[in-house]
Amino acid sequence: MPTPFMDEDFLLTTDAARRLYHTYAAPEPIFDYHCHIPPAHIAEDKVFADMAELWLGADHYKWRLMRWDGADESLVTGGAPGFDKFVRYAEALSRAPGSPLYHWSHLELRRYFGITEPLSPASARRIFDECGAKLPELSARTIISRSNVAALATTDDPIDDLRYHRAIAAAGFKTRVLPAFRPDKAVNIDKPGFWGYIEKLGEASGSAITDADALKDALARRMDFFGENGCLLSDHGLDTMVYVPGDADAAFRAARAGCVTREQADAFKTEMLLFCCREYAKRGWATQFHYGAIRNANTRGFEALGPDAGFDCVSTRPCADGVAGILDALSREGSLPKVVLYSLNPNDDAALATAAGCFQGAGARGRIQHGSAWWFNDTKRGMRGQLANLADLGVLGDFIGMLTDSRSLLSYTRHEYFRRILCGLIGEWVDNGEYPEDYETLGGIIRDIAFGNSVKYFGLRVS
Amino acid sequence: MPTPFMDEDFLLTTDAARRLYHTYAAPEPIFDYHCHIPPAHIAEDKVFADMAELWLGADHYKWRLMRWDGADESLVTGGAPGFDKFVRYAEALSRAPGSPLYHWSHLELRRYFGITEPLSPASARRIFDECGAKLPELSARTIISRSNVAALATTDDPIDDLRYHRAIAAAGFKTRVLPAFRPDKAVNIDKPGFWGYIEKLGEASGSAITDADALKDALARRMDFFGENGCLLSDHGLDTMVYVPGDADAAFRAARAGCVTREQADAFKTEMLLFCCREYAKRGWATQFHYGAIRNANTRGFEALGPDAGFDCVSTRPCADGVAGILDALSREGSLPKVVLYSLNPNDDAALATAAGCFQGAGARGRIQHGSAWWFNDTKRGMRGQLANLADLGVLGDFIGMLTDSRSLLSYTRHEYFRRILCGLIGEWVDNGEYPEDYETLGGIIRDIAFGNSVKYFGLRVS
Amino acid sequence: MPTPFMDEDFLLTTDAARRLYHTYAAPEPIFDYHCHIPPAHIAEDKVFADMAELWLGADHYKWRLMRWDGADESLVTGGAPGFDKFVRYAEALSRAPGSPLYHWSHLELRRYFGITEPLSPASARRIFDECGAKLPELSARTIISRSNVAALATTDDPIDDLRYHRAIAAAGFKTRVLPAFRPDKAVNIDKPGFWGYIEKLGEASGSAITDADALKDALARRMDFFGENGCLLSDHGLDTMVYVPGDADAAFRAARAGCVTREQADAFKTEMLLFCCREYAKRGWATQFHYGAIRNANTRGFEALGPDAGFDCVSTRPCADGVAGILDALSREGSLPKVVLYSLNPNDDAALATAAGCFQGAGARGRIQHGSAWWFNDTKRGMRGQLANLADLGVLGDFIGMLTDSRSLLSYTRHEYFRRILCGLIGEWVDNGEYPEDYETLGGIIRDIAFGNSVKYFGLRVS
Repeated sequence: MPTPFMDEDFLLTTDAARRLYHTYAAPEPIFDYHCHIPPAHIAEDKVFADMAELWLGADHYKWRLMRWDGADESLVTGGAPGFDKFVRYAEALSRAPGSPLYHWSHLELRRYFGITEPLSPASARRIFDECGAKLPELSARTIISRSNVAALATTDDPIDDLRYHRAIAAAGFKTRVLPAFRPDKAVNIDKPGFWGYIEKLGEASGSAITDADALKDALARRMDFFGENGCLLSDHGLDTMVYVPGDADAAFRAARAGCVTREQADAFKTEMLLFCCREYAKRGWATQFHYGAIRNANTRGFEALGPDAGFDCVSTRPCADGVAGILDALSREGSLPKVVLYSLNPNDDAALATAAGCFQGAGARGRIQHGSAWWFNDTKRGMRGQLANLADLGVLGDFIGMLTDSRSLLSYTRHEYFRRILCGLIGEWVDNGEYPEDYETLGGIIRDIAFGNSVKYFGLRVS
Repeated sequence: MPTPFMDEDFLLTTDAARRLYHTYAAPEPIFDYHCHIPPAHIAEDKVFADMAELWLGADHYKWRLMRWDGADESLVTGGAPGFDKFVRYAEALSRAPGSPLYHWSHLELRRYFGITEPLSPASARRIFDECGAKLPELSARTIISRSNVAALATTDDPIDDLRYHRAIAAAGFKTRVLPAFRPDKAVNIDKPGFWGYIEKLGEASGSAITDADALKDALARRMDFFGENGCLLSDHGLDTMVYVPGDADAAFRAARAGCVTREQADAFKTEMLLFCCREYAKRGWATQFHYGAIRNANTRGFEALGPDAGFDCVSTRPCADGVAGILDALSREGSLPKVVLYSLNPNDDAALATAAGCFQGAGARGRIQHGSAWWFNDTKRGMRGQLANLADLGVLGDFIGMLTDSRSLLSYTRHEYFRRILCGLIGEWVDNGEYPEDYETLGGIIRDIAFGNSVKYFGLRVS
Repeated sequence: MPTPFMDEDFLLTTDAARRLYHTYAAPEPIFDYHCHIPPAHIAEDKVFADMAELWLGADHYKWRLMRWDGADESLVTGGAPGFDKFVRYAEALSRAPGSPLYHWSHLELRRYFGITEPLSPASARRIFDECGAKLPELSARTIISRSNVAALATTDDPIDDLRYHRAIAAAGFKTRVLPAFRPDKAVNIDKPGFWGYIEKLGEASGSAITDADALKDALARRMDFFGENGCLLSDHGLDTMVYVPGDADAAFRAARAGCVTREQADAFKTEMLLFCCREYAKRGWATQFHYGAIRNANTRGFEALGPDAGFDCVSTRPCADGVAGILDALSREGSLPKVVLYSLNPNDDAALATAAGCFQGAGARGRIQHGSAWWFNDTKRGMRGQLANLADLGVLGDFIGMLTDSRSLLSYTRHEYFRRILCGLIGEWVDNGEYPEDYETLGGIIRDIAFGNSVKYFGLRVS
């Protein structure tokens, strides 16, 4: 007899895994230290009209699934009625065994709506209506509170005035909602929109940006402002990791004159990344490098729907020299902050964990982290791969664990998914005689990875 | 007690897998949409002299195995007696647990000859003789018919007159035998033999080829001819994926003058690939990109035996920018045909499936496919990897499934091998509670992947 | 009930695996054909002061683990008391489920000290003392003899006078201790210290080195000397694999003048590698290419502690063109020696095994080998991956198997670890019906991989 579909022991195939999960992992709160939830939704305590808005309104993972299954764009991001979109999603999903969306979607139906029936074209109407009836009580803050989220960090532009973060704090919401500093637009000197952004950043920081030093000053002032508003960490989205020392100001001038070369752009990006990291180190902030995507690979899709609409893919450019070069440059200066490394290409796992391993020590557990399986890798297979690689090459017990990286409030169930996979993996080792049946030690490790390590790593003050 | 060796439940480790395979997968016919069987063999209904000719006459997989085991070339491709070759193959094979050849060879012995005894040096004589006795009745068409092959597509040169395809059709053979258009020799401007080929292509297409436009015209005329003869798809064998827009005609002239640069050659190849794809899109043909091989890596071997003789290896050049660039260029023009992407390097799987995912939609399920594990990856491990990657990143139920890519008629058993691996994988998910025990849906998916999806994808008309 | 922790059937999950391991693998002697044990330790029959010296004195794997866990450098390589280091290692180790160090450490405690209690901060004192009491009887030669080591090859500089090897031979030690020729310092023309080394090499070889040809002569004379002292194999540590034919002597002069370009350096390295291989082929030596590391990635760490101190990481540079280019150049000349290929990046596995497969034959089983999972890949997952890849793409039964690559005498247990993993994998295939339950054939293969193949491959004369 097969195991029942996604029951309480989902993904927990050994006694050890079940014990580790239910006793140690499940009760831990969540620190979702990197997500893309709009803070306005939390400040306004947003309520969703129907499951189509909640599930399909902003989720490019689901859009890609539907397009792959041949759905017309009107049913994906277009003007079709909500239920039509929902049933089309159900159709695509039922054809996608093995997809992480299959698990995510059903975890969300179970945990937030109590629905255990599999979603299919046949059940879509019932489920759409049953969920719809529960939506009015599932406001943004209710979802967060029910999900046992102690804290979360959004992803914010340096020019953001953080009004929503202040409003949330003022409202006495029990979950800490931190801003995170993501200065990509101030760094991507070779992308359209750079100069318009620089002007806005000048306004936000209170003085015009006329050279690379002025840009640095502006960013530092915005970091100060973010810091005053509780920021503990930052994030860089990089096409590829490069370490090309050079003259950032010359690149700035060249770009202003409209003729920046690839090497100048790389030098500018290198210097801006180094500068930011120096500032993070001063402030005790951690940072994250997310790289390895070819963004907006489909020009027509990008032109129609903008970025983050499901038109990105995995890059295959070599990265290790860039990663090692950046970390070493900061280390030589004595200004290496805590860094979490993420590549979209899972082939980089060995390079990232071993690069991290070259810059550890200095009194903190896992100062340089190889971050949790990211984006397209955020699957059972991808997470097991990242965890096994980290276990091979680092100290698994020092891992800061999961983040949702999600635009959707229901995605907290991905922490559950991660914890089940983590306990499943370690449980197999115990079951196999590869680690002693020492639940005290392992339970502590599980709790650390689920919550405690990230709290210490980012310096979150929890009451 | 171990499972008996390769019994009826070979690779089917769960009840769900067994049910999915025996009920849904096994009965489906085969559409082998990409193979290298010489159409002459089918037209002439070839009969083989002995197992050495049938197994070792043209199979570079087996040649590599024998050479790896130290066999003298006389026993591999040389003039040694057939049985001597056969027993040497048996010796090498018995030392190769885990090799796909171990499974392929024994599946072939079982399905076509009824032999269940493992092949070894000790059993080689008996098996050679027993097979030999059955060979006279195993003509090419008999093998194809017994294998339940509804249709197959060979791989043909644009200058081919397709006489054998017409002869096969005229003979009323029940299996549809389609030509497929593979214009590599017209594209590889930097390889020896290009100009000689261009002259032949000019003859075949009816006018001399004096510039890049004339070459395009010639190819288009040959596509018309192939289309009249039932062609539905094409195939490009590319060393590496590049997208280098440039002046194809300037490259043509430079090459004619004997001084084409690497960048010019890349520009030429880019433009010719784009041109062909535009033409395929007009005709409703699908195409395939096979890339990632270093061909003829062993110069002495190549000089002695020519191409496709077992002297190729996996390339490690980065590919994603090239793949995404080509697909996007065609998409921008509105002339992107259906494309199946294959890399010889399994590390490219994540890049390929995510690149495919950027260009889906438009009313067809899985318009851009990440093709089945190819060549060196055509193993249990390789196929599971490709399927799991596709399940993670796409819609597994929309996959067009297996092809043999083989020069050997007995290779249809690789479809069985693939189906067992597919059902084994999905069966594990059901057994694990990762997908509901919904055999109607899963059975439909299995049938689609085994046969139905490829029929729809390529537009095969089946009676 | 879980399997007991690391009992006699550790990693042997099937009956077939247990039978293969206990009957065939375990009794075989060891030929550790590549290690970094200082020959002086064997000549002097070194005894260790305490477990800190033995375990932590020179093991950069353990250093990395401790640093990752945040240990202060004084406890890693500094002046802290031995027990303080030991207990800190125990602490880090207990937080590292899944780490190969967890298994290596506990195998060593079991096999050499009879300790079955898991190492943890709580047990560290007891274990430190109990091991310490046994250390006086565990001299270098005692460890080697108890480990059933028939022969081992150290890693030696061409300028070494091999006095310790002669002393060991003269002492009548039953284990053969061979030198191995590693000329990296004579090849790395772009690294600091090159010219100083060249001078020393000139002295060792008896004539000044004034050009590339003189360097070749000097190396050839040192090979002669190594050969007289029993050398059978060599080893090249390469940053990356390049094949750039060019003028080595021009590069030599340019470097002497202080202005060698990257391309000149690559041409020099290419020519020196080709030259050495020609000489190895003449002598019947095998060679090893170890590449794919970014060495000394952490400049501060390197400056403080020198090379091989735990500051290296995995490179991501493409390699296949270089590997294939070098092998083909030698093959064209008819001077390709036996070569074992190792990359630090596991993504190269498919490229390496298929490149090896292009140059086989000529009467030796597995002339070109894809070497055992190296360094960071020397884990259960890494070894299974390398074995499965080799089984897919080569002839597993022709594999020359394991080496320790270790600086530590206790590392012979890694041969046990490897053999358990090998038998575990093949046992699964038998259990699954993927290979017949033919213990005679499989047992022979296991014995060959464990010992016999490497003896034949390197031409070791065993009594």
